[in-house]
Amino acid sequence: MLKGYSVPRSPEGRAALVPSPPWHYAGDFLVIEYWTDADAVAAVLPPGLAPYREDPGRCAALFVDWQSCSSDQSELMDPVRSQYKEFFIVVNALYKGEPVTYCPYIWVDRDFALARGWIQGFPKKLGSIHITRSFNVPSAASPKIEKGGRFAGTLAANDRRLAVGSVTLEKPSAVGPTHNDPPIMNVRYFPRLSSGQHDNPAVNELVRARSRDRAVSEIWEGTAELELMSAPNEEHTALSPVRMGKGFRLSFAYTVDDLETC
Amino acid sequence: MLKGYSVPRSPEGRAALVPSPPWHYAGDFLVIEYWTDADAVAAVLPPGLAPYREDPGRCAALFVDWQSCSSDQSELMDPVRSQYKEFFIVVNALYKGEPVTYCPYIWVDRDFALARGWIQGFPKKLGSIHITRSFNVPSAASPKIEKGGRFAGTLAANDRRLAVGSVTLEKPSAVGPTHNDPPIMNVRYFPRLSSGQHDNPAVNELVRARSRDRAVSEIWEGTAELELMSAPNEEHTALSPVRMGKGFRLSFAYTVDDLETC
Amino acid sequence: MLKGYSVPRSPEGRAALVPSPPWHYAGDFLVIEYWTDADAVAAVLPPGLAPYREDPGRCAALFVDWQSCSSDQSELMDPVRSQYKEFFIVVNALYKGEPVTYCPYIWVDRDFALARGWIQGFPKKLGSIHITRSFNVPSAASPKIEKGGRFAGTLAANDRRLAVGSVTLEKPSAVGPTHNDPPIMNVRYFPRLSSGQHDNPAVNELVRARSRDRAVSEIWEGTAELELMSAPNEEHTALSPVRMGKGFRLSFAYTVDDLETC
Amino acid sequence: MLKGYSVPRSPEGRAALVPSPPWHYAGDFLVIEYWTDADAVAAVLPPGLAPYREDPGRCAALFVDWQSCSSDQSELMDPVRSQYKEFFIVVNALYKGEPVTYCPYIWVDRDFALARGWIQGFPKKLGSIHITRSFNVPSAASPKIEKGGRFAGTLAANDRRLAVGSVTLEKPSAVGPTHNDPPIMNVRYFPRLSSGQHDNPAVNELVRARSRDRAVSEIWEGTAELELMSAPNEEHTALSPVRMGKGFRLSFAYTVDDLETC
Repeated sequence: MLKGYSVPRSPEGRAALVPSPPWHYAGDFLVIEYWTDADAVAAVLPPGLAPYREDPGRCAALFVDWQSCSSDQSELMDPVRSQYKEFFIVVNALYKGEPVTYCPYIWVDRDFALARGWIQGFPKKLGSIHITRSFNVPSAASPKIEKGGRFAGTLAANDRRLAVGSVTLEKPSAVGPTHNDPPIMNVRYFPRLSSGQHDNPAVNELVRARSRDRAVSEIWEGTAELELMSAPNEEHTALSPVRMGKGFRLSFAYTVDDLETC
Repeated sequence: MLKGYSVPRSPEGRAALVPSPPWHYAGDFLVIEYWTDADAVAAVLPPGLAPYREDPGRCAALFVDWQSCSSDQSELMDPVRSQYKEFFIVVNALYKGEPVTYCPYIWVDRDFALARGWIQGFPKKLGSIHITRSFNVPSAASPKIEKGGRFAGTLAANDRRLAVGSVTLEKPSAVGPTHNDPPIMNVRYFPRLSSGQHDNPAVNELVRARSRDRAVSEIWEGTAELELMSAPNEEHTALSPVRMGKGFRLSFAYTVDDLETC
Repeated sequence: MLKGYSVPRSPEGRAALVPSPPWHYAGDFLVIEYWTDADAVAAVLPPGLAPYREDPGRCAALFVDWQSCSSDQSELMDPVRSQYKEFFIVVNALYKGEPVTYCPYIWVDRDFALARGWIQGFPKKLGSIHITRSFNVPSAASPKIEKGGRFAGTLAANDRRLAVGSVTLEKPSAVGPTHNDPPIMNVRYFPRLSSGQHDNPAVNELVRARSRDRAVSEIWEGTAELELMSAPNEEHTALSPVRMGKGFRLSFAYTVDDLETC
Repeated sequence: MLKGYSVPRSPEGRAALVPSPPWHYAGDFLVIEYWTDADAVAAVLPPGLAPYREDPGRCAALFVDWQSCSSDQSELMDPVRSQYKEFFIVVNALYKGEPVTYCPYIWVDRDFALARGWIQGFPKKLGSIHITRSFNVPSAASPKIEKGGRFAGTLAANDRRLAVGSVTLEKPSAVGPTHNDPPIMNVRYFPRLSSGQHDNPAVNELVRARSRDRAVSEIWEGTAELELMSAPNEEHTALSPVRMGKGFRLSFAYTVDDLETC
């Protein structure tokens, strides 16, 4: 009798790469809102989602420094299994006429987060992500979360730098990032390997993310920059900025143990 | 119209973590045949497989130093996307009365190989694998593939060492490793996240691996040692050796683009 | 005319692994005070330092999550060159009758910090260090800096786990960790390779660390645990705890651009 | 009484990052000969070396896949401490009228190799290096060492790709790479940190490498390509090719336990 939420399933269920939900998350976010070419957004939307004509080409790029754990919180006492960093792009779209966001590209630096993402429908690949931190002590080596504080994020994968973003804080934000108000939609996708079935996936379902116990810190906003760099096996540069929006810095927490299949 | 064999699917299909089959592989193998507790083998078998009563507790541990590519061989000119190392354990079993092998635990050091494994039904997690090499030049730093040549493999994951194996060569092998004669069976498994469905996977299918264009080098055999070490989120030590068999060193190549669903 | 503080020295001086001092540091510290066998401490002291007979066997183990930069702070906008983690052990000793501390073993996870350490006399090797973080948002995934908050640190090197420590917070600390009140002494050491000179280093000098612009956050203290694990090429387990002291959590910043040669 | 060839020095001498010489090496080389701007070569030469006017701007770029060990060969049974990859550039120069080569820039992917390099005078930084391999089995995933065989090498550091080279084999080489006939000169350099002494290194000596027990495989030669990419903290692109020479593939072994101070 094999146990465990994910592979490898094992006699005691302890070996699974992804432990059973719920999954608790806390993280520091660098959010960069921007606009890209509207056709480039349309080109990454899966069946079921339509372009968001009201504000075409709207996107956000997010660098996140995460810590997560499952119910028994054992990962927090073995932090190599708890911490990871992530970069992703979301585009605005419509689902049955309702505003949503969709994540076409996402990179993460640990295996458990990669597999957990696939199960949620996030199309994760491994990358190397670094994000400026603020420490609770005055230092030339620690930007402050106040006017003039500058924070950067970088992404690389396969030994190539793929994204650099930065935010210069100006003031506390009355509203916060707006890209994330609509729910996020994903596609759970698991291919077949049998001959003749390579284009007929075993799982291909549009889903809507669900979360609970959401909490957010004070949010700061300011100006932002973002550059995306190309690589032979990447297409994210098609979503490069043509116009910048605001940048934000915040801490955020939530819990995930559910999903809505559309 | 999104393209690509795996996520992330993209307008041109270049961003997919796993390129379309066929996948070509070449690698150097360290194979260690051994026996563990027969009940421990029975405990890791999925539904559909039965213990191999004829030779109970029979296993093999394999350290493999791989290079792989897809049809256009572009990965060979960008070797960061081509090379990876792997450690796995196979146990002998019966499927409908026929001898087979089954892989309960496997670690690999690159994301594309991890995802490609999941699609084939190999329950891969990331690990750090190192394997002694032989270079084509006389040196104290290069064991020779001849009598007395010694080769080792090690596995770690989450900053803990999990396996150490070694082989001391004695002679060319007339037969080669025998664990791999029967076909290898896997379980393709992809969980659901919707509330109430965590134990009801979207994909849970017993499959039989298929490969073609198999090639093997001269095989050397000798004595072998293997130690498995425990970790909080691992259960592979339940398959620790109670008796050692032979060790083997060989190079092997094959191509995969098919799978048989049982 | 080659420029640069460290190798590689180059025409513009931009390529140096270690940029010119001053170096600014900010970090989160997990400090674990303990006692080991007094003879084991005596055995790691370099010439010039004597055992601290007043409190024999006194040690501390420190896990630190650092961010650092040089004068132009450019590293903060390219955080891959700014952040690193570190584990080290200090032992108490006497220098000319004055209480000091000495660092026999230290691991760090980035090359610039490794080389910068050698120049200061810290005997750094590369390791993998992870430390529980607290985020500024309520979450099951984020321990709070308050009574009951639990934080852990782990060290591995060469794929083997070498140290695990943890602190459970009890109250703000009136005094803070006391191991660090005396100045820290190091040995700058750079071997020769010429035949017959392998035991006659080019540099072998006892030095006393100097720093300025020191700043510290509120300090919390509590109970602590520490376990050191052995490896073939490590000797730190000779300094394993025989009695535990307090654990501390704090943030700390300072600037280094000087050193006193003794 | 502390023992050990390098830091950390310890009671038994087992903890040293660099074990005592001799050091035995075996590796697979991709050598790319080329010419860059002669002034750029002159600009990287240390005092004591003069430009090689006979063939100005002559360079070579080398990607090497190494395995090394010390006298007891214990590293070969723990290959995580034995294997590493390296990329470096050498330029031709004159020392007291005699042709030599000099290595201005070099990257390596393991700490023991970095420290061992500093001791020899190689100005090593950490990088990520990957090199196409040939396996001893026919496969689409394994280029052959024969006419038409193609091999590539790549370098990255700090998450940025810094070099890509490739060689297409044409024929066995009668002569082999010629850059390496002259002896290689290095500068052993160890800075001071005491205030006012930052430009007055403790060690700054021109040295000539010595090795013994050199062995080389059959050498293949062919055409070559090389591209160097810039980064904020790198200057190697000043040595970019203006004209390509031949490329070579070979295996090479040697032993090092001496050095000549000039």
